[in-house]
Amino acid sequence: MTDLLWPGDERAGDSFAAEAFWRAMVDVESAWLQALRPGDRSALAERVSEDDLGSVARAAEASGNPVVPLVALLRSRLQDDDPVAARWLHRGLTSQDVVDTALVLCARSTTSRVLAHLEDLTDSLAQLAARHRDDVMVGRTLTQHAVPTTFGLKVAGWLHGVLDARDDLLRLHFPVQVGGAAGTLAAAVELAGDPVAARDLVAATATTLGLDPAPPWHTVRTPLTRYADALVRTTDALGHVARDVLVLARPEVGEVAEPAADGRGGSSTMPHKRNPVLSVLVRRAALAGPGLAAQLHLAAGEAVDERPDGGWHVEWATLSQLSRRTLVGASQAAELVAGLHVDTARMAERAEAAAPDLLAERTGIRAVRDERPPDREQDRDHDHEQDPRSYLGAAAALVHEVLERAHAVDEEDS
Amino acid sequence: MTDLLWPGDERAGDSFAAEAFWRAMVDVESAWLQALRPGDRSALAERVSEDDLGSVARAAEASGNPVVPLVALLRSRLQDDDPVAARWLHRGLTSQDVVDTALVLCARSTTSRVLAHLEDLTDSLAQLAARHRDDVMVGRTLTQHAVPTTFGLKVAGWLHGVLDARDDLLRLHFPVQVGGAAGTLAAAVELAGDPVAARDLVAATATTLGLDPAPPWHTVRTPLTRYADALVRTTDALGHVARDVLVLARPEVGEVAEPAADGRGGSSTMPHKRNPVLSVLVRRAALAGPGLAAQLHLAAGEAVDERPDGGWHVEWATLSQLSRRTLVGASQAAELVAGLHVDTARMAERAEAAAPDLLAERTGIRAVRDERPPDREQDRDHDHEQDPRSYLGAAAALVHEVLERAHAVDEEDS
Amino acid sequence: MTDLLWPGDERAGDSFAAEAFWRAMVDVESAWLQALRPGDRSALAERVSEDDLGSVARAAEASGNPVVPLVALLRSRLQDDDPVAARWLHRGLTSQDVVDTALVLCARSTTSRVLAHLEDLTDSLAQLAARHRDDVMVGRTLTQHAVPTTFGLKVAGWLHGVLDARDDLLRLHFPVQVGGAAGTLAAAVELAGDPVAARDLVAATATTLGLDPAPPWHTVRTPLTRYADALVRTTDALGHVARDVLVLARPEVGEVAEPAADGRGGSSTMPHKRNPVLSVLVRRAALAGPGLAAQLHLAAGEAVDERPDGGWHVEWATLSQLSRRTLVGASQAAELVAGLHVDTARMAERAEAAAPDLLAERTGIRAVRDERPPDREQDRDHDHEQDPRSYLGAAAALVHEVLERAHAVDEEDS
Amino acid sequence: MTDLLWPGDERAGDSFAAEAFWRAMVDVESAWLQALRPGDRSALAERVSEDDLGSVARAAEASGNPVVPLVALLRSRLQDDDPVAARWLHRGLTSQDVVDTALVLCARSTTSRVLAHLEDLTDSLAQLAARHRDDVMVGRTLTQHAVPTTFGLKVAGWLHGVLDARDDLLRLHFPVQVGGAAGTLAAAVELAGDPVAARDLVAATATTLGLDPAPPWHTVRTPLTRYADALVRTTDALGHVARDVLVLARPEVGEVAEPAADGRGGSSTMPHKRNPVLSVLVRRAALAGPGLAAQLHLAAGEAVDERPDGGWHVEWATLSQLSRRTLVGASQAAELVAGLHVDTARMAERAEAAAPDLLAERTGIRAVRDERPPDREQDRDHDHEQDPRSYLGAAAALVHEVLERAHAVDEEDS
Repeated sequence: MTDLLWPGDERAGDSFAAEAFWRAMVDVESAWLQALRPGDRSALAERVSEDDLGSVARAAEASGNPVVPLVALLRSRLQDDDPVAARWLHRGLTSQDVVDTALVLCARSTTSRVLAHLEDLTDSLAQLAARHRDDVMVGRTLTQHAVPTTFGLKVAGWLHGVLDARDDLLRLHFPVQVGGAAGTLAAAVELAGDPVAARDLVAATATTLGLDPAPPWHTVRTPLTRYADALVRTTDALGHVARDVLVLARPEVGEVAEPAADGRGGSSTMPHKRNPVLSVLVRRAALAGPGLAAQLHLAAGEAVDERPDGGWHVEWATLSQLSRRTLVGASQAAELVAGLHVDTARMAERAEAAAPDLLAERTGIRAVRDERPPDREQDRDHDHEQDPRSYLGAAAALVHEVLERAHAVDEEDS
Repeated sequence: MTDLLWPGDERAGDSFAAEAFWRAMVDVESAWLQALRPGDRSALAERVSEDDLGSVARAAEASGNPVVPLVALLRSRLQDDDPVAARWLHRGLTSQDVVDTALVLCARSTTSRVLAHLEDLTDSLAQLAARHRDDVMVGRTLTQHAVPTTFGLKVAGWLHGVLDARDDLLRLHFPVQVGGAAGTLAAAVELAGDPVAARDLVAATATTLGLDPAPPWHTVRTPLTRYADALVRTTDALGHVARDVLVLARPEVGEVAEPAADGRGGSSTMPHKRNPVLSVLVRRAALAGPGLAAQLHLAAGEAVDERPDGGWHVEWATLSQLSRRTLVGASQAAELVAGLHVDTARMAERAEAAAPDLLAERTGIRAVRDERPPDREQDRDHDHEQDPRSYLGAAAALVHEVLERAHAVDEEDS
Repeated sequence: MTDLLWPGDERAGDSFAAEAFWRAMVDVESAWLQALRPGDRSALAERVSEDDLGSVARAAEASGNPVVPLVALLRSRLQDDDPVAARWLHRGLTSQDVVDTALVLCARSTTSRVLAHLEDLTDSLAQLAARHRDDVMVGRTLTQHAVPTTFGLKVAGWLHGVLDARDDLLRLHFPVQVGGAAGTLAAAVELAGDPVAARDLVAATATTLGLDPAPPWHTVRTPLTRYADALVRTTDALGHVARDVLVLARPEVGEVAEPAADGRGGSSTMPHKRNPVLSVLVRRAALAGPGLAAQLHLAAGEAVDERPDGGWHVEWATLSQLSRRTLVGASQAAELVAGLHVDTARMAERAEAAAPDLLAERTGIRAVRDERPPDREQDRDHDHEQDPRSYLGAAAALVHEVLERAHAVDEEDS
Repeated sequence: MTDLLWPGDERAGDSFAAEAFWRAMVDVESAWLQALRPGDRSALAERVSEDDLGSVARAAEASGNPVVPLVALLRSRLQDDDPVAARWLHRGLTSQDVVDTALVLCARSTTSRVLAHLEDLTDSLAQLAARHRDDVMVGRTLTQHAVPTTFGLKVAGWLHGVLDARDDLLRLHFPVQVGGAAGTLAAAVELAGDPVAARDLVAATATTLGLDPAPPWHTVRTPLTRYADALVRTTDALGHVARDVLVLARPEVGEVAEPAADGRGGSSTMPHKRNPVLSVLVRRAALAGPGLAAQLHLAAGEAVDERPDGGWHVEWATLSQLSRRTLVGASQAAELVAGLHVDTARMAERAEAAAPDLLAERTGIRAVRDERPPDREQDRDHDHEQDPRSYLGAAAALVHEVLERAHAVDEEDS
């Protein structure tokens, strides 16, 4: 069974796919086993393969999660070779420890892949903003012509959104989950001897997996909701780009065009069609993200007892969907912006044609400034005055500001 | 890649899986080709297999949907044997016709499978309501003891919800989508000769596929939102059952228990555990359903032009998730209710112990009725009066009413 | 405190405002009292006024709903004049009976107002579709030019969506809620003598209020989710209209314009601006509706015990928001469409200019039909052939079909 | 018109009410006017009153927001006294500047009020966690008894969630919005002379209002989505507390009880009822929050042109609802926790009775640790061993850790 058919989804690779989640669970069991038994050579990852995934999946319902059958399988595979490892395996953990830490591993991997795309996107946007800093175009509000702006400033807005998303992604923590049956670490303390030693086991596991040590968070789902919020902030930023491109690439507007690629944007029936496929698919992510993130918040607010009764379970597929949607969208947006065609001539031509309207605000402003009645004749006096480029305000300075911000993030990031 | 690891998902079979959607798309092309060329023997379904799915999926992004590469593949496979079929294939259709009709085929198949589970669930609930029609238990409001009720009446409430969902599922229509490039049937008219003949092609295609003929609905998404509403009405009804079972199966309440099954409800670490796994997973569906259905409404309200710019694309994975969640939940709920253990003795014992509170309302009511000041002593006068069974109001009649309703639906349905 | 500042909200009048809900609660208490004591002359509605709303509202939190303080207030007002009515008041009811029935009364009133707007909207759309049945325009898919269509057919799509919404609104039932403390009608049976007589009281109350009799639905929230689904189907249909107008009214497209009205669409700073305010505000409804309806489904799936522990409470403000958003949107959409300016000359001009692209599909189709290689020269042979009106397929017939549907609904409805 | 009837809503005071938003808009116009004309004495706030709100609200639809009529009103009131101020008023601003900055002022005020409640809540939770650090209770997972835990550790989990929410609220920025008609500051530059001077006007306005200076963010909605995310993180944390209280306060569990208050938790018909009203209403916030926050993300992703075509408009009522729901919930949760009754005797009694099950895990763990077959007899050997307090793992240390965290936040915060 696969979801592969949705266009562009292969960009997600195995992010949050069952196979990746499966390997992550095995990695968690392995890291804990090594913490319990330094020098462990049980090589768990070699004892199971993705061929085992189907049988574990089928058995997962009985216990409500895939850990019970996974542990049973690992024990049976270890039994002959390494019976001691078979006995120690998973001791001190609970199913939620394994599932949650595996989810965090998948989230961390997705985050770094999304960040890589956003880094590319930032570079492309920064170049685009710099290149078009002074390229005048019609500013539109509520779909109608307003005052002049520049394409550089529009791109600056896209870039601010992307930098906001990067900030949030960079600030994420990826904590290990080890709490034992009810989050007390009781079994770990039993095995380690005392609470301090038990916490050391947790820390060692975190180190092995490259995660942060943390107190148990079985019912405090902030790590996942913060991740979801950062992803949906990403899809928000991507959606902003996509909706603008979809407007500007309409044939009647024609101010930008998607990058051409072999076969891209073709129709099953109309030979002339060049559909803005990347923008359309990026917009898909922006429409999907908010509702998916909301489900993770709902699950967080439904935490109860020492392990939630359904709120936990709804997180899994939702995280997977949201992660893949964001990753695919970020990849597509990076490609979209890197190759975006910008028709500055058409932008300028339209702005010039609309100059009387675009400059109408200025007439009133000058009259106030100069403490005289508005006089459109006077304001239209000079040719220069009718150039929409003469009413761009602080646009260039605002572009400069976002470029500095982008530069600062890159500095920090590297 | 697979989503198989989520517990219980194998209950969905291939419903809305990529393979099923793939076959549905081929069926649509085939039905249309047969309408265009009666007597067609191109046997499309035999010319491709699921092995082709990967390559088509990878190519799907270029056109934003999988139809363009699917048509190219089919044409290449037909080319040598049946070049005429290769040329006629897909003529008159647009990608959205194929995708939408395939989605409807998957929706229809899912609906009939959900309905089969709801039929079983109805039978089990009806039996349960009848069996426990007079079994007294504590009625609880806002988590606290209120007045007596019966377990039969509680089950009657579950059953009303399930019957409401069945009503909505049974009322669904599954329309074919054939509109051509912009919903005018222009190419079909060109091929068929005139509008009437073109509509006949659409009708023939609908008949072949077992769907309803319909005018094009590229931007009128009611068929999909009605389907989503009916599914989420189903998950609402299932969630109601699950939340009640999760309360009543708590050890401190202990009035019901999930059916036992080998290995069911086990813990990875605690030998005594019997977790209410089915209820927990059914509740997962109820938490997931509303947000997913909302995305389909959002997509419907975002319809624009003659084919939406992203709203259409967000529907696909969302329909798939919502369908699978509902189907798995319905299957699990049917099993849950069919085997539910009911501890009527414990229910009665608790109701009897709580009788003074449960009957307190009656004291005031009787005083009003008899136009005298309330006198709890007098009301407690007789043993009978302290029996919570003596204050069950119309509970038995209300149970009877839902059983008649269930019976009527079954009659109608069969 | 008020929410009045949001633009257009005065169109909602008092629909689902606190005052309307307040009066509805009093009406419910009154109808039940009359059922209990035929000939009752307590004139509840005259004994309280909206001036009492503040104190009741402040006291509402203690009991978690406004019914306890409302009943206390009514009793204190009746005490001197009609002590018997004071004693009988509310006997047999529970708070949820009063709140839910009051919600249903507000929902019924909102529904009839929404339906009135949709009737106007249907008439306007039907006229528009008929008038522009043959007016050619560019068909657009994924924002790009596709094949020709007519403005009449585009309007036909809007009309199908509105008719779907009307169908769902017309099918709604508005059931009374009377179940007593735990939905058993125990107190009512005590007062009435037996279950049959108790159900008669419920039926009489329903009749007085113009509602449908029904078994208690304290935890079966279908009446509210069906209402929500019908409203969101309405906002879906309205959103479809708004998004199309927002595209077509862009200055670069300029094929339609919103109706002019004094001061409408003005800017705080730009004198030339004519913003498509109605479409923008209608779109607001379409963006808000799905999430609000989802919350009602979530509440429905969270039903537990004999009265839910929070799920019930989240419904109230959500129903109010969704109702007002829909009602305001429907009113705005009716005005928008009634006065829509359509520039058929510009539509035709653009379609003619784009004819080579718009007709490109036909070349391939004819080649297949005539079993010859495609020859764009030949297909362009005649002037007629280059007229986009020559490739409109079944557009006129499809318009005719929706007009017949609109006519049938009106017949039925009247 | 009012929404006051919903229980507990008076706790929100005027947060995000129309009156507060009205005053905030006047404050924004005033601050900008003072920046333009230092020494301005126009005293805008004294020239209008809430009595004007109705007429402005009614006129708001024509321009799609209330700023145009507000500016017209202010100008008419200034005209005689201070015609210069009347002319300078609002010059350089656009409607969105005023609305957005007013929203931010309301958001800032709401945030500080929510934070005050969370500070109280933190104190109460810290005391509760410290007091019950060693009070044993049954740990429950998936509703069933698992291993022992302490009430202190449960409270520690609640506290972690609240501290996470506080962290996010404390990190919020509240930026002024001044961009002019299309976000270029063109009119401000015209008035101020150059971009640097124009930015100085923005900075002065921010200072007057106590906000952060910022580049225009008309289409980069991060300030609002971050606010929404922090609020929903708050409702998540509150919901976690509420769901636990709702379980533990069930009569069959009886381990905690809501604080008693005069009339609190009463029923309209059952004299004995003490409903957990605060928890129920807090849970309402947790069920409402995620969907409302999602709408703000949706709006953010729908940003287009230089001012969005509906996405902007849907934010207003949504921010208002989400803010009030969170503020009311935080206030109620603070009261709930401050007065929570904890029945440690009952907790201990239940844990002792369940000891054999609660300690079953330990048997297996010890056998592994000691490299011997499990022997429940041996493990039950000593009385001490059957005490659930003997298997609490690191619970006390984990409580200690959260107390240190709470202390650190308070330090930082003060």
